[in-house]
Amino acid sequence: MINLWSHLNVKMADDVTYGENVFIGAGTVIERGVTIRDNVRIGANSYIGERVTLGEHLREFYHNPDYANPVTDIGDRALIRSGSIIYAGNEIGTDFECGSYVSIREFSKIGDGCSLGTLCDIQGYVAIGNHVRLHSNVHIGQKSTIKDFARIFPYVILTNDPHPPCAKCLEGPTIEEYAIVSTNAVVMPKVRIGRGALVGAKALVTKDVPDGKVVVGIPARITGDAADIFCELDLGYRPYPWGGG
Amino acid sequence: MINLWSHLNVKMADDVTYGENVFIGAGTVIERGVTIRDNVRIGANSYIGERVTLGEHLREFYHNPDYANPVTDIGDRALIRSGSIIYAGNEIGTDFECGSYVSIREFSKIGDGCSLGTLCDIQGYVAIGNHVRLHSNVHIGQKSTIKDFARIFPYVILTNDPHPPCAKCLEGPTIEEYAIVSTNAVVMPKVRIGRGALVGAKALVTKDVPDGKVVVGIPARITGDAADIFCELDLGYRPYPWGGG
Amino acid sequence: MINLWSHLNVKMADDVTYGENVFIGAGTVIERGVTIRDNVRIGANSYIGERVTLGEHLREFYHNPDYANPVTDIGDRALIRSGSIIYAGNEIGTDFECGSYVSIREFSKIGDGCSLGTLCDIQGYVAIGNHVRLHSNVHIGQKSTIKDFARIFPYVILTNDPHPPCAKCLEGPTIEEYAIVSTNAVVMPKVRIGRGALVGAKALVTKDVPDGKVVVGIPARITGDAADIFCELDLGYRPYPWGGG
Repeated sequence: MINLWSHLNVKMADDVTYGENVFIGAGTVIERGVTIRDNVRIGANSYIGERVTLGEHLREFYHNPDYANPVTDIGDRALIRSGSIIYAGNEIGTDFECGSYVSIREFSKIGDGCSLGTLCDIQGYVAIGNHVRLHSNVHIGQKSTIKDFARIFPYVILTNDPHPPCAKCLEGPTIEEYAIVSTNAVVMPKVRIGRGALVGAKALVTKDVPDGKVVVGIPARITGDAADIFCELDLGYRPYPWGGG
Repeated sequence: MINLWSHLNVKMADDVTYGENVFIGAGTVIERGVTIRDNVRIGANSYIGERVTLGEHLREFYHNPDYANPVTDIGDRALIRSGSIIYAGNEIGTDFECGSYVSIREFSKIGDGCSLGTLCDIQGYVAIGNHVRLHSNVHIGQKSTIKDFARIFPYVILTNDPHPPCAKCLEGPTIEEYAIVSTNAVVMPKVRIGRGALVGAKALVTKDVPDGKVVVGIPARITGDAADIFCELDLGYRPYPWGGG
Repeated sequence: MINLWSHLNVKMADDVTYGENVFIGAGTVIERGVTIRDNVRIGANSYIGERVTLGEHLREFYHNPDYANPVTDIGDRALIRSGSIIYAGNEIGTDFECGSYVSIREFSKIGDGCSLGTLCDIQGYVAIGNHVRLHSNVHIGQKSTIKDFARIFPYVILTNDPHPPCAKCLEGPTIEEYAIVSTNAVVMPKVRIGRGALVGAKALVTKDVPDGKVVVGIPARITGDAADIFCELDLGYRPYPWGGG
């Protein structure tokens, strides 16, 4: 067993289990019950909560005696709450934060400054940009793309299978910069949600949404421009575009 | 470390970890892997399942070296199943019961005799009355109010943000006494569901529902009175109002 | 304590706790933190992930000092991922696979070759046939029936209560062979989804769907035959019926 981590101020609980070729950055805290598989790198000044699993084995592990665990890379200042599971092959940027019982399947790439709420389920092979926020219990199907500063609210589902069950046609939606997908909306495979667009709560989005437009309903239809929305509490305030979007 | 709990018949597993100023009532069982943070009170004759976390640290803990954990208070006869997480600052009444992997964020107040199903996600700053029942996987946004004897069914979401993402306008719905919100309905911010009203499955409730009315659809529309519903198996039985509602 | 299991190549972590009358088949691996209650049988060549609970106590356990745990039976070659909870009284066939944090309540019967995704919530008294697949976060209400080769996608909910809350009228839907229920559809109590039928994403199914038909919308309406659907990427390919359905 070769463990190359820095011992500079790493605090690790007694019962942490770890595999080979694990690197842990300085100042990181690893709570009890954590499991770290082979080939995992954790950045500096991170906090890994109780019973988190990092670099979880892919399905092949259970059947192939020659299985080698892909590399998992998590940036500096990660805050990963208890019970979350990050599978092998993921690459996560700096300042990552997630709630409890989050699952991130294999070979996703997540940029810097992202946060994922409790119970989020990222199915793998997903591309997530920088400063993206997912609220609780968001489900991202394989091969979806979410760009910088997009915001996704609870129980949203990005789907990827045009005629389920199909193994070969899978392709998820693309959520452009600053787009907002509201609570419990479902986005159909390959659909593009435009930059700064706003998808209403519980919408079923079956076709592309142009930049800056608002869509609502089942199926979703355009009802106007996000820029025309005002705040009922402060009638002079136009909330969109927001944050530079 | 000062632990003031009664040793009268408390059964605690060897590996339970606990902070300072923890009080545990007589006859309570604490299973293995449980974590109790500072300033937690657990009532008598309770059962705390494996790997439950009580008084979980708020976000400030990870950044502020002077952090002090708010008081968490859980009443007598609680039954908290494995893996559930109750954050600091919560106040929960007697006879509380919850399923596994429930999350209750900070500064909520829950009355007596309430039960929460598996995977419920209470986002904090929520007011829940007495004898309220939430089925599995219900999501309650911050600053929502649920009154006595209300019943909420699986995958219901109470939202609180009128123009997401907004930090200042957050205000959740109010669910009045004996109201019923059926499976996977979504209730928009600030909406009031009247006493004894019935929200149909998968409805999107965008405006107030008068007492005793039935609403269905997206957006939800009034279709009649709950009192006119009959049971198909027993045509003479009118199920509403129920339980005194 | 009487434990009858075969010691032939069973690998069990040091901290596994187990009750009386537990049988573990040859070649099975039991990871750390697992809890096995009384009267559990686990087949050969299975993998039980970290912190799984098998034969979890029913509610009566917490109140009745004479409680006896019903028998739990899990077939050969099970792969049960971390944190999943299988309650007592379940009977599960061979080659079962499930994701993390799955919950299967009491007295369900699951056939051979079934798989359940992360966070699935099976409420108990459910009949599931052979080779059924549930994707992530599917909720199956009590007394539902799912037949061979049916496929159910994320956040689908099978309901069972015609006028909630009712304790006596509960009866879930029946999903026939090869039927497909797409993402976040909700199926109302007692509804039958016909053989090879296709329920669209986010549909609310309020009445029976004939064999081979497609339904979409809220409430769901028939839009055609599954056999007429073609693949946009390969116009000559008709995906339904699939797999012999």
